[in-house]
Amino acid sequence: MQAEIISVGTELLLGHTVNTDAAFIARELAVLGIDLHNVTVVGDNPQRLREALAQAMKRSQLVITTGGLGPTMDDLTKKAVADLLHRPMKLHEASLTQLKEYFGTRPIGSNQESQAYFPEGAQVFANSIGTAPGCAITAENGTLFMLFPGPPRELEPMFRNEAMPMLRKKIGSSIVSFMVRTFGQGEGDAALKLGKLCAQTNPTVATYLGAHGEVFVRVTAKGETQAQAKAMALPTVAEVRERLGDVVYGVDVESLEEVVINTLIKRKEEVATAESCTGGLLSKRLTDIPGSSAVFRTGLVTYADITKTRLLGVPQEMIARYGAVSREVASAMAEGVRMRSAADYGIGITGIAGPGGGTPQKPVGTVWIALATKNKCYATCLNPTGRYAGRNVIRQRSVGKALDMLRRCMEGKPVVPEE
Amino acid sequence: MQAEIISVGTELLLGHTVNTDAAFIARELAVLGIDLHNVTVVGDNPQRLREALAQAMKRSQLVITTGGLGPTMDDLTKKAVADLLHRPMKLHEASLTQLKEYFGTRPIGSNQESQAYFPEGAQVFANSIGTAPGCAITAENGTLFMLFPGPPRELEPMFRNEAMPMLRKKIGSSIVSFMVRTFGQGEGDAALKLGKLCAQTNPTVATYLGAHGEVFVRVTAKGETQAQAKAMALPTVAEVRERLGDVVYGVDVESLEEVVINTLIKRKEEVATAESCTGGLLSKRLTDIPGSSAVFRTGLVTYADITKTRLLGVPQEMIARYGAVSREVASAMAEGVRMRSAADYGIGITGIAGPGGGTPQKPVGTVWIALATKNKCYATCLNPTGRYAGRNVIRQRSVGKALDMLRRCMEGKPVVPEE
Repeated sequence: MQAEIISVGTELLLGHTVNTDAAFIARELAVLGIDLHNVTVVGDNPQRLREALAQAMKRSQLVITTGGLGPTMDDLTKKAVADLLHRPMKLHEASLTQLKEYFGTRPIGSNQESQAYFPEGAQVFANSIGTAPGCAITAENGTLFMLFPGPPRELEPMFRNEAMPMLRKKIGSSIVSFMVRTFGQGEGDAALKLGKLCAQTNPTVATYLGAHGEVFVRVTAKGETQAQAKAMALPTVAEVRERLGDVVYGVDVESLEEVVINTLIKRKEEVATAESCTGGLLSKRLTDIPGSSAVFRTGLVTYADITKTRLLGVPQEMIARYGAVSREVASAMAEGVRMRSAADYGIGITGIAGPGGGTPQKPVGTVWIALATKNKCYATCLNPTGRYAGRNVIRQRSVGKALDMLRRCMEGKPVVPEE
Repeated sequence: MQAEIISVGTELLLGHTVNTDAAFIARELAVLGIDLHNVTVVGDNPQRLREALAQAMKRSQLVITTGGLGPTMDDLTKKAVADLLHRPMKLHEASLTQLKEYFGTRPIGSNQESQAYFPEGAQVFANSIGTAPGCAITAENGTLFMLFPGPPRELEPMFRNEAMPMLRKKIGSSIVSFMVRTFGQGEGDAALKLGKLCAQTNPTVATYLGAHGEVFVRVTAKGETQAQAKAMALPTVAEVRERLGDVVYGVDVESLEEVVINTLIKRKEEVATAESCTGGLLSKRLTDIPGSSAVFRTGLVTYADITKTRLLGVPQEMIARYGAVSREVASAMAEGVRMRSAADYGIGITGIAGPGGGTPQKPVGTVWIALATKNKCYATCLNPTGRYAGRNVIRQRSVGKALDMLRRCMEGKPVVPEE
């Protein structure tokens, strides 16, 4: 089945919104093994939308639209699809009832009410967050149209809860997919280690470059049932893990920070952080995870040397002798925050994120990261590679490295390369 | 001039990369007043790329491609454009020289060397970051093709330095555009205040919804020269500022945090932060700005009540009496971090970002934000509105509010609504 996405919205053509909806849908379709071959963005312009829909109907079996369903858009997308398919618009009573509930005692304008009308024959997708429902409708040539609202927090649950089961059923054969996530090796190295696995056909194995030092490996199997597909996929997942070794931080997990927080919760242990160049990004990523408050009580951003001394007890002489960006100071920060917050683990990060502040001995991009435990303090240095990658890249990579060191430590894996 | 973007890359169709390039280019084109009417994403597939290019050439006067220029892609995009325009590929000596410099003593493979070949008649754009140059080439029907590499940090400087001057020249008439940025009012309120300004034709005035409580107003003027266009735009910019009042935090600035950091630097003042539910996001956003280390020495993430007491001196009795999420505790956090770090300003944030942790009295989404100065402590409460918007939205909004309070305070504007 060939699919395409049509994203509707002038805000996308003005660059005020980045098209994250298309990326979300692309990932979901990949899970099902559906081949996405085009994404088209058009503005809130009826004629261009009609052209895009007509072209899509000719070449694709599945056409997914996002946006153009809200009351301010005058329901552009539904009308365009209804016109293309020569269907009248019909009132969907249940949607009107929900709309009335949503508005309570406030009056509903006709532009709001239009959200309860759909092309005849459409199956309506309820919106659990906002006011505009989505829908699915099959054209006479067999092309399936699926229409979704644009806001990601409305689209995403609707897509997962309504579209995915419908698509799974339509595909017939069952597809199961696992994502093995790694930190700290290149995509080329991963491909080398996986070798012939990448050439298999069922299950298939494919590598993807994630952000900031992460590489993902997707294993996808097709079978007659979910159980059969899963049974086919699992041995390959195990082999991928085996071949890649301890760079694997999880399978079907959301992020490195999620793994770290959940492992800490399981172990009933706590971490505390002391950050210089990453300026709170590490604590921000840890606290992105709901429930992190149970295992993360204290984070310090000690940008100034005086703060490192006062809040963390890093001796002034040490900073003077080795410099604030050094193994010694990173370690003292990690130990200091661990001791003073009575945590099980302390992390210290100190470096030069740039663009200014570099020296010939310590160029921009030099970052020392330390992990203190009850018995030991590990430290490692990220050195600048190639041209300056920018402040954000250096900060994200450093935080990734710190999280991965803690993950490795809790799993009993080597924390830093042998010295 | 009608423009369209063709983004090339299977990674975009798999959802592993979000199409930020298209959003960046869209914003740049908007500045020039060039009408972007389509974005198309195709995979690394020669036939679909050719189809997309041919369609674009028919309907657009400017076609911008991103991606498909690197050595692993076998220079898909350049070849497809050369074929479409019936131009042979020619070696560009200067690019080959640069490539050799980049690789130094390492050998250059033929796939790498292909990056120095371009369709005959192309003007080459040097790549200051990576290895693949871009280029511009005009078809016989007058359509201008501009080809860029996919990685944002390569594309963005190339677009700004090479494409923008070329496009400005091509447009002939000069266009000047200013972006007025506001925090803390809705797009509807802004449009009401702007009234008839939004219906003007030269300069034009348009509102855009930014993220997390921000609304932007773009003023664009067209004239025979840059100076003339600017002179036409400025009175309207002043009127927009006047009508919107103190929600305006800057014109043509990057972000609220940039304004705050630069104002602190100018005033030679310092801020310190104490965060609970935002978990370091405030310090992260402050330290996103290069040079922030001069005015931001200390940030504390005091997730646990015990940490609030120990690091900030918030009395345990106060937490017991009013709760950790209260005006009193937020204010004590702000005062505590200000005093203990000897800063001019202290910010305290405490709230419930969810999804768990709410009570009937203090539902998820309740966040207290306090700003302590030498003489006074301001505090305000963000209350949950409508359905749960998610942890990230609540955290970003709270940090935006805190930054805006500090901005208002330094500008002598009302910091919190009168009570």
